[in-house]
Amino acid sequence: MSDSSQLPKIIVIGAGGVGVIGALSLYYKGLSNVSLVIRSDYDLVDKRGYKITSCDYGQFENWKPHHVYRTVEDASESGQFFDYIVVTTKNIPDGPAHSAVSQVIRPLIDNNHKLGEGCQTNVLLMQNGIDIEKEIWNLFDRKQYHLNVLSGIQLIGSTKVAPGVIDQVGRDNLIVGAFERENKDAINAAKKFVELYHNEGKNCAEFDENVRYSRWKKLLYNAAINTTTALVGLDVPRCLEFGVDRKSTEENIFKPAMREIVAIAATENVLLDESLITFFVEITRHIMFKPSMCVDHEKGQLMELEVILGNPLKIAKNNGVQTPVLSMLYYLLVVAQGRLREKNGLLKFDESKAELVDSVQSL
Amino acid sequence: MSDSSQLPKIIVIGAGGVGVIGALSLYYKGLSNVSLVIRSDYDLVDKRGYKITSCDYGQFENWKPHHVYRTVEDASESGQFFDYIVVTTKNIPDGPAHSAVSQVIRPLIDNNHKLGEGCQTNVLLMQNGIDIEKEIWNLFDRKQYHLNVLSGIQLIGSTKVAPGVIDQVGRDNLIVGAFERENKDAINAAKKFVELYHNEGKNCAEFDENVRYSRWKKLLYNAAINTTTALVGLDVPRCLEFGVDRKSTEENIFKPAMREIVAIAATENVLLDESLITFFVEITRHIMFKPSMCVDHEKGQLMELEVILGNPLKIAKNNGVQTPVLSMLYYLLVVAQGRLREKNGLLKFDESKAELVDSVQSL
Repeated sequence: MSDSSQLPKIIVIGAGGVGVIGALSLYYKGLSNVSLVIRSDYDLVDKRGYKITSCDYGQFENWKPHHVYRTVEDASESGQFFDYIVVTTKNIPDGPAHSAVSQVIRPLIDNNHKLGEGCQTNVLLMQNGIDIEKEIWNLFDRKQYHLNVLSGIQLIGSTKVAPGVIDQVGRDNLIVGAFERENKDAINAAKKFVELYHNEGKNCAEFDENVRYSRWKKLLYNAAINTTTALVGLDVPRCLEFGVDRKSTEENIFKPAMREIVAIAATENVLLDESLITFFVEITRHIMFKPSMCVDHEKGQLMELEVILGNPLKIAKNNGVQTPVLSMLYYLLVVAQGRLREKNGLLKFDESKAELVDSVQSL
Repeated sequence: MSDSSQLPKIIVIGAGGVGVIGALSLYYKGLSNVSLVIRSDYDLVDKRGYKITSCDYGQFENWKPHHVYRTVEDASESGQFFDYIVVTTKNIPDGPAHSAVSQVIRPLIDNNHKLGEGCQTNVLLMQNGIDIEKEIWNLFDRKQYHLNVLSGIQLIGSTKVAPGVIDQVGRDNLIVGAFERENKDAINAAKKFVELYHNEGKNCAEFDENVRYSRWKKLLYNAAINTTTALVGLDVPRCLEFGVDRKSTEENIFKPAMREIVAIAATENVLLDESLITFFVEITRHIMFKPSMCVDHEKGQLMELEVILGNPLKIAKNNGVQTPVLSMLYYLLVVAQGRLREKNGLLKFDESKAELVDSVQSL
């Protein structure tokens, strides 16, 4: 292994099941210098490292990447230029303002801009949803900041089961591409990242030449199934089996919702084959799986509602697509999200007046 | 007060907040002999009576009606003929078979039939929902059993707050009528019940000449609002205020759902005025009220889903009415009810196969 300080520098933000295995994958490959921002477990991990049980890489007792930071600010003050800023946190635009992705990465972008002298900063969003890149584009001038925004879509079963303890039970499968299909620099940066990430025989990592298609495709599952399970608080098989005649959940919720996504995507010339609908209904029929929004709802954490459902519905509205099923799911989940926002102090409800208190941050 | 054993005999089934205040109202009037079936609190109440704080009747420390029974079977073996059988339990056709209303009242109906020699048996269903009388009609021949089935719709705020302790905070308002509009005996029995129940200056009780209309009217609220609050687990004001721009819950869920109820009722020539929609949206806008289905859902108890939403949707289907909003609420709530049915042992789910176990009682 070469002197890691000479290698491309990558900082991973978000030290959950996804972020830690992501950092491990990069470190394992040995072609980059890997930093990880760890919020809650920093002291523990800084001292002892992670205990990891990984179906891809095996057992680790005290693993750490090259650098760990408590905050993004600390990392930005380290004097380093980061070639890749990898964001693995949840994307919740209706969450606290300071946790918006653009705000979280701002110190690193600014610092890179100061140090970089024309070097490219690549932001890789390993997150769910559609139109998540626009928040970054709106805030930072791509030319001025030499900024590429990259898309990462990951399939992985990995969970932080205790402070500093990660269990990866499902293989890591990552596709990376450029949000701008015509931007050669961004495309090259995405391809380069795949090289830095892919460990032959361990994980899967591929270049994604049609990011928008891949995101719409994943939305078929997330907008229809993730959302429904969150509302009723049940794993996918129970949602299917508890329907009227064991059929109504798939016939009257999942499939019509997915057909609406197909129709919305079609107005952007993204053509999703009808066979994908059956594919996604079947994919977790016999797996005791609770999608992320369902888990977040249960834990009292904010759900990725806007990027999974709110953004596609904005596109539907602009393009005149009827979405009766997705809209109902959305209007119900907005209320459920309101409940979570109240619990998390993002809005206040005055029971004596039976009204929202206006002063608190609104959507 | 006359010798109560000579008065019309009334038995109230269900000793929750509604049933106990109902029994008290009848007892207070002094024109009937009142029995109450008390399941869980029987021993306590038999010994000490109820402690009641009532906005209609004041304070009682040790109140009991003329008779208390532990079970309907015990009551049916008492050798009495009951002129009125008043059912105040929840109506849950998809619950345990033994708790179906027709099964619960069967011993009393049979006993009356044996003793009655042509006397009329009046069954008063003080319950939510539409088409609840049909279950009784299907099981008992009305002529053979000299049976009248009466409808009671009650507005009351009354809760059992502890074993043997009842708190009534909202005035009792009852309307009673005959499910069969043309049946003079039933109409007279309903009017008679109002006389036995109404305490001038205390409660309100009125004869209802158009039962079907009243039930569709109440369904406007229950099918749209009760259901939504149950899904998201929030009181009505929060549901309204947490919507997009504080508007989507009423504009995109409550009102369209109510318009669908109006359309279904119209196919039965029940004409609900559009102004009722606004009325019901407003009625609990500023009251911190959680409807019954929401409370049941929270407590892990089965919801009155079929009589509130399933039955109207059957009528809609038969009569060709489109119900996109109500149907979505229904399909989601059927899954939520499945969760409650599993918790209550009414269905079994095999996680190793990710499938329902067939042998358990199904819908």
